[in-house]
Amino acid sequence: MVMEEEVMVNRKVVLKHHLPPDRMPKESDMELVATDTVRLRVPSGSMAVLVKNLYLSCDPYMRSRMTKHDEPSYVPDFVPGTAGITVHGLSGYHDTYRFGSSRFSITGYREWQPTLRWLLSIDRRSSALSVMRRIFDIKLIRIKTSEGQVPTSRKEGSFTSNSTNTLCMPGLTAYAGFYEICSPKKGEHVFISAASGAVGQLVGQFAKLMGCYVVGSAGSDEKVNLLKNKLGFHEAFNYKKEPDLNKALKRCFPEGIDIYFENVGGAMLDAVLANMRLNGRIAVCGMISQYNLGKHDGVHNLLALIAKCIRMQGFLVSNYYKCYREFEEKVVRYMKEGKIVYIEDIAEGLENAPSALTGLFAGRNVGKQLIVVARE
Amino acid sequence: MVMEEEVMVNRKVVLKHHLPPDRMPKESDMELVATDTVRLRVPSGSMAVLVKNLYLSCDPYMRSRMTKHDEPSYVPDFVPGTAGITVHGLSGYHDTYRFGSSRFSITGYREWQPTLRWLLSIDRRSSALSVMRRIFDIKLIRIKTSEGQVPTSRKEGSFTSNSTNTLCMPGLTAYAGFYEICSPKKGEHVFISAASGAVGQLVGQFAKLMGCYVVGSAGSDEKVNLLKNKLGFHEAFNYKKEPDLNKALKRCFPEGIDIYFENVGGAMLDAVLANMRLNGRIAVCGMISQYNLGKHDGVHNLLALIAKCIRMQGFLVSNYYKCYREFEEKVVRYMKEGKIVYIEDIAEGLENAPSALTGLFAGRNVGKQLIVVARE
Repeated sequence: MVMEEEVMVNRKVVLKHHLPPDRMPKESDMELVATDTVRLRVPSGSMAVLVKNLYLSCDPYMRSRMTKHDEPSYVPDFVPGTAGITVHGLSGYHDTYRFGSSRFSITGYREWQPTLRWLLSIDRRSSALSVMRRIFDIKLIRIKTSEGQVPTSRKEGSFTSNSTNTLCMPGLTAYAGFYEICSPKKGEHVFISAASGAVGQLVGQFAKLMGCYVVGSAGSDEKVNLLKNKLGFHEAFNYKKEPDLNKALKRCFPEGIDIYFENVGGAMLDAVLANMRLNGRIAVCGMISQYNLGKHDGVHNLLALIAKCIRMQGFLVSNYYKCYREFEEKVVRYMKEGKIVYIEDIAEGLENAPSALTGLFAGRNVGKQLIVVARE
Repeated sequence: MVMEEEVMVNRKVVLKHHLPPDRMPKESDMELVATDTVRLRVPSGSMAVLVKNLYLSCDPYMRSRMTKHDEPSYVPDFVPGTAGITVHGLSGYHDTYRFGSSRFSITGYREWQPTLRWLLSIDRRSSALSVMRRIFDIKLIRIKTSEGQVPTSRKEGSFTSNSTNTLCMPGLTAYAGFYEICSPKKGEHVFISAASGAVGQLVGQFAKLMGCYVVGSAGSDEKVNLLKNKLGFHEAFNYKKEPDLNKALKRCFPEGIDIYFENVGGAMLDAVLANMRLNGRIAVCGMISQYNLGKHDGVHNLLALIAKCIRMQGFLVSNYYKCYREFEEKVVRYMKEGKIVYIEDIAEGLENAPSALTGLFAGRNVGKQLIVVARE
C-alpha cells in the first residue's frame, strides 16, 4: 500500500547528446537519470492525473529522432539534456493506468507521467496526437483526489501487453500497410523483410489469412524457425546466410513477387525489384538497414518500376487512424479465434531501455521489443 | 502515277547486332538495307493490303530492345540480321495510308508494309497490340484490287503528323501519366524532367491548364528557352549547367514539389526525392539517363518515401488505352483552341533513321523525334 503524501523518485532515460547520422546508437548515448521526484497525491480538485507507465515500446523510427535535423520531419528530434527531455525526448508508447485498466498512450521513457497538462499541450500542438488520443480512447481520468493516492494493485480488468502492441501502433501499421497500401488479393505472392519484427509478423499472418503465399526474411535461424513453425509462413530465409539475395528470392518465388512489404531497404530492395511481377506493389514501411548510415545505399533496379508497372508507396501509420475501429474489430476477432499469435521480446526494467533500444539495430530482439517498467 | 505491276525496292533499317547494355547506340549498329522489293499490285480478292509508311517515331524505350535479355520484357528484343527483321526488328509508329487518310499504326523502319497478315499474326500473339489496333481504329482497308494499284497522291482528308504524335503514343502517355497516375490538383507544384521531349512538353502544358505551378528541366539553353517562351512553363533550367541539382530544385521550388513526372532517373531522381512534399506523387515514365549504363546509378534518397508518404508509380501506356477516347476528345479541343502546341524534330528520309534514333540518347532532338519517310 502506497502511503499518502509519499514522494517517489521518478526515474527516466534521457538522450545524452545528438548522434551523428552514420553510426549505430550505443547504450552510452543514453543514461538513466534518477533526479526527478513525483508526489503521489494529486492536489484535490485539480485536473492533474498521475499515469504509471507499465510497458514502453522500442521502435526503429526512433533512431532518426536521435539525430538533429536541419529541416523538421514528421516527428521532432529528441532534445538531449535534462529539462523537458521527457516531453520532447525519448518517447514511446505505453499503457496508462486507470484503476487497473490499461490503455495505449504516448509518454516518455520514465516511470511516472505526472500530469495531464503535458498531454493537453501536445494536443494543442499536434492534431495527429490529438486524433490518436481520441481514437485510442485514452481516458486519463483524474485520480480521485478524495482518496488522494494511486492504487498500487489492479482492481478490475485484465492487463496484457497486447493493447500496447498488436492493437496499437505496430498492429495498425501492419494492418493499414497491408490492406490499404498493398491492395492484396487471394493467391498473390507476398514477401516481407524483417518478417519476425513488430510489424512484419502481423503482415505475414494477415496475408496468410487472405490466402496468399507468404515468405519472410529475418536475420537469424531462430527467427526463421519462428516464421515457419510458429507464425505459419510458407517459407522463410536467413538473409545473413544467403550469399546472393536475388537467388534466394528466385528460389522462394520462381514466379515472382506480387507484394513486397518493405522494412529494411538497401540491397534487399534491389533484389526484390529484380523479382517483382507485373503490377506489383511495394508498401514502404521502414528501411532499418539504412538508419545508421550517413549516406544511404544506392538502389539500382528502379527501372523495374516502369517495365513491371510497380507502385511503391511510403506511408505513416498516423495517416490511417481512421482505420482503427475496423482494424481493432478484425484483429481482436482473429486473436480470440487463435488465428493470430504475437511474439514479444520484453526487457525487464527501465534501466534496460538503452540496451533494448540499441538492440533493435543489431537485430537482437526476437519479435516486438518492449520494456516492462512495472507489471501493474 | 505508279504503274500497274510496278515492283519497287522496299528499303528498311535493320539492327546489325545486339548491343551490350553499357554503351550508347551508334549509327553503325544499324544499316539501311535495300534488298527487299514490294509489288504494288495486290492480288485480286486477297486480304492483303499495302501500307505506305509516312512518319516513323523514335522513342527512348527502343534502346532496351536493342540488347538481348535473358527474361522477356513487356516488348520483345529486336532480332538482328535479315529475315523477319522488320517484323521483330526496329519498329516504330507510323501512319498508314488509306486513300489519302492517315492513321496510327505499328510497323517497322521500312518504306512499305506489304501485307495485313503481319498485323494479323501480331494480333494473335499480343492482346495489347490487338487492343491498340482496335482503339486507334486502324482501318487497313484492302486496296481496291479492281484498281490494282496504290494511289500516290492524297485524295481526301488532311494529314498532319499530329496523329502520329500528340494524339498517339506520347500523347496518351503524357495524358495517362499526368491525369491517372499523378492525381493532380489545382495549385500543386509540378516538376518535369526531359521536359521538352515528346511526353514532357505535353505534361507541362496539361499541368498549366490545370492551374499548377510548372517547372521543367532540359539539356540545352535552346530547350529551356522553348519551355519558358513557347510551352508556357513558369520556370525551367538546363541541368547540364547546374553544379548542384538539389540547389536548382530548391531555387525553383522553395516550398517543395507535389508531383514529379520522371523521365530521366539517376541523380535527378535523388535530388527530387530530397525536395518532395508530404503526400507527393512520382509518375515513373522513363529513365533515359540510365538506358546506356551496364549498372544503373544508385538512388540514395528513397527513405524520403516514408517520411513524406510519397507514392512512386511506374506505368506503361499500353495499360491506358481505355483512356484514349477521353484523351483524344480533350486534347483535340485544346489544340483547336490553341491551348496546346507541340514541338517536333523531323529527320528527312529513312536513311537518317539511325542518326535520329541515336540522337535521342545524346539529347540532340528538340521536341518529339520523327523520321519522315514520305510526306504522302
